[in-house]
Amino acid sequence: MKRFVCLLTDFGVSDEYAASMKGALLRISPGVNIIDVTHELPAHDIISAAYILYSIWDYFPRGTVFVCVVDPGVGGERREIVACGEGKYIVCPDNGTLSLLLRRGARLTCFSIKRKAVENTTGKRISATFHGRDIFAPAAGLICNKKFAAIRQQEINPYIIPQVFTETTASPHAIKGRILHIDRFGNCISSIHQSESAKNSFSGKVTVAARNLTISPISKTFADVAPGRRLAYWGSTGFLEIGIRNGNAAAALGIVQLDEVVLR
Amino acid sequence: MKRFVCLLTDFGVSDEYAASMKGALLRISPGVNIIDVTHELPAHDIISAAYILYSIWDYFPRGTVFVCVVDPGVGGERREIVACGEGKYIVCPDNGTLSLLLRRGARLTCFSIKRKAVENTTGKRISATFHGRDIFAPAAGLICNKKFAAIRQQEINPYIIPQVFTETTASPHAIKGRILHIDRFGNCISSIHQSESAKNSFSGKVTVAARNLTISPISKTFADVAPGRRLAYWGSTGFLEIGIRNGNAAAALGIVQLDEVVLR
Amino acid sequence: MKRFVCLLTDFGVSDEYAASMKGALLRISPGVNIIDVTHELPAHDIISAAYILYSIWDYFPRGTVFVCVVDPGVGGERREIVACGEGKYIVCPDNGTLSLLLRRGARLTCFSIKRKAVENTTGKRISATFHGRDIFAPAAGLICNKKFAAIRQQEINPYIIPQVFTETTASPHAIKGRILHIDRFGNCISSIHQSESAKNSFSGKVTVAARNLTISPISKTFADVAPGRRLAYWGSTGFLEIGIRNGNAAAALGIVQLDEVVLR
Repeated sequence: MKRFVCLLTDFGVSDEYAASMKGALLRISPGVNIIDVTHELPAHDIISAAYILYSIWDYFPRGTVFVCVVDPGVGGERREIVACGEGKYIVCPDNGTLSLLLRRGARLTCFSIKRKAVENTTGKRISATFHGRDIFAPAAGLICNKKFAAIRQQEINPYIIPQVFTETTASPHAIKGRILHIDRFGNCISSIHQSESAKNSFSGKVTVAARNLTISPISKTFADVAPGRRLAYWGSTGFLEIGIRNGNAAAALGIVQLDEVVLR
Repeated sequence: MKRFVCLLTDFGVSDEYAASMKGALLRISPGVNIIDVTHELPAHDIISAAYILYSIWDYFPRGTVFVCVVDPGVGGERREIVACGEGKYIVCPDNGTLSLLLRRGARLTCFSIKRKAVENTTGKRISATFHGRDIFAPAAGLICNKKFAAIRQQEINPYIIPQVFTETTASPHAIKGRILHIDRFGNCISSIHQSESAKNSFSGKVTVAARNLTISPISKTFADVAPGRRLAYWGSTGFLEIGIRNGNAAAALGIVQLDEVVLR
Repeated sequence: MKRFVCLLTDFGVSDEYAASMKGALLRISPGVNIIDVTHELPAHDIISAAYILYSIWDYFPRGTVFVCVVDPGVGGERREIVACGEGKYIVCPDNGTLSLLLRRGARLTCFSIKRKAVENTTGKRISATFHGRDIFAPAAGLICNKKFAAIRQQEINPYIIPQVFTETTASPHAIKGRILHIDRFGNCISSIHQSESAKNSFSGKVTVAARNLTISPISKTFADVAPGRRLAYWGSTGFLEIGIRNGNAAAALGIVQLDEVVLR
């Protein structure tokens, strides 16, 4: 059975970076099937990376290897990790990339990567500025070649970004979360998940205090409101989103990543 | 023989949408070969989608499945369709996506898609906002698995966008068409096809009345005019195009999609 | 063993051009594995194409075919070429695309392409404006089908762009080069390679005279300087680069392609 290797980076596609990763991977494991998830993650935006990784996780089959490189700390102290669970693997820097999967219950076991094992395979010195090509892509290739045991070092607790968490308050009864990602249409995706809402009863009033914004009730789909009108709805990944029908909510309402969102 | 599945969407690649479609397809039919045609169609621009689909159709081998999702009506009343002809398949919303292929003579038989058959395969509820992932990609996977009969419902007449048609007038002798698509270089591609021109004799005078623009005669290639000069020419897909050598015709001349073009 | 075909173009992905090339290739050689290197090369920028091609060359396995189409001279007098060396192939217009590989020592043998052999295979007339689809992609397909001998004509000396060369001066002791490419982060990549520097001793003073800019000494990585500060460093492809930590050097310093860079 052919392996899928999913690539998520902020490298863009106008330079050699994404292609060099593909080449480094294919030299080691030429039979894999590369899936470009995105190379257009906002530069250095680890939270968006964590969101996209979470939102596609369920849709790929067992055996898939995800390589997720948004790596502002390259060349510094952060570790490189390989996580495995549900028959899938993730290779990434230990900078919070796994936050949303872990917060939302994915059973992942995480290990630091043995750099020396990667370097011995590629026969090339690891550069100071490009671990996507020199560590992460080759590590994925080795996993595809059933060399997972050779590259993993000790088990570790990966870093989790605190802002992906939500908080349920008793009085007034509410869930507090934050905007995680703004999509290309300007829809604003929060960290509040439908499953959390289902556990309790809420009136369905959504507030973004910093933007002086209240929306109520929660709609089912864009067609429920008139063109140009704002709405809150459970998006296709299960999170509470804020949008404008035929419009760009982030631009029109001034919403930015990490804005606090409250569902009452 | 491996199947090709061509993806055409307006989802961009900075979010999870295109990748979720790929995952949903590969879970059902892991052996297919995904071809990213484009995820950068202008948002909601069904006419451009119809044009790009038409222009690549001939170049892909028998057995190819095209998934074309520009779907402003998602969640509303429009049907989902699967079309087949010349040994190839197209999965798309019934919103005019097939207009140009049908107008230009492709022999396609069209059916509505049996949603229930798709839902039973994925085991996931169809969301209100993302049929690319929940219906169209899985339907393509089922076709690749030789389950075409299982997903098709009754035969239908698909919706055709009237603007893709051309009209031949007797006096004065002319063909009237419209601008269908503006490419990234600013070249303006009309609905007037070389084969229509060949049937009659025209003087080769091209007019865009709304922009107060007349070009004559029709050039063979950009090199026929001086840099910066406008020209009309038969483009690589066979349609009459308006361009500027080393320049952006749409921006410089103010031409927009659906502008009427007349060839005399 | 499956063949990889790497595509490098300036066609973008919002039109049909890149996809038509893929289709034309797959019709001839359906078993190949297409790798999108980039379709976002700056329009008509042959030097950037030459740089990206050079920078990925080593990372792809033997047997890979590179199709590199930045072709402002399409329809004119320039020849089409196929180059082979190190078990890999390149198909491109003879316009300087191979300059950096040849300058940096790649052992390539170059031939002009027999247009008639390509045309006979596709059964389609070669258009005046789109040789990517009509010549280069089919030629790559034929190479993958072991028909290299059928498409090559006489051996030729390909055109080399003079600006990719560097010059070593004796007094004062220095290497002169030029900016070849500016990446999406604004890092400015010069033609001066670490291997040239290693042959002699330099003080490590980098000058871009046209921008009134001097940087010294050469840093190891971005983390060596404070955020917002400029630096010169040996990039991941081995060339001397100028960057700003967490910033865009090209924009901030006014550096443009072909600016002269001197290392003393």
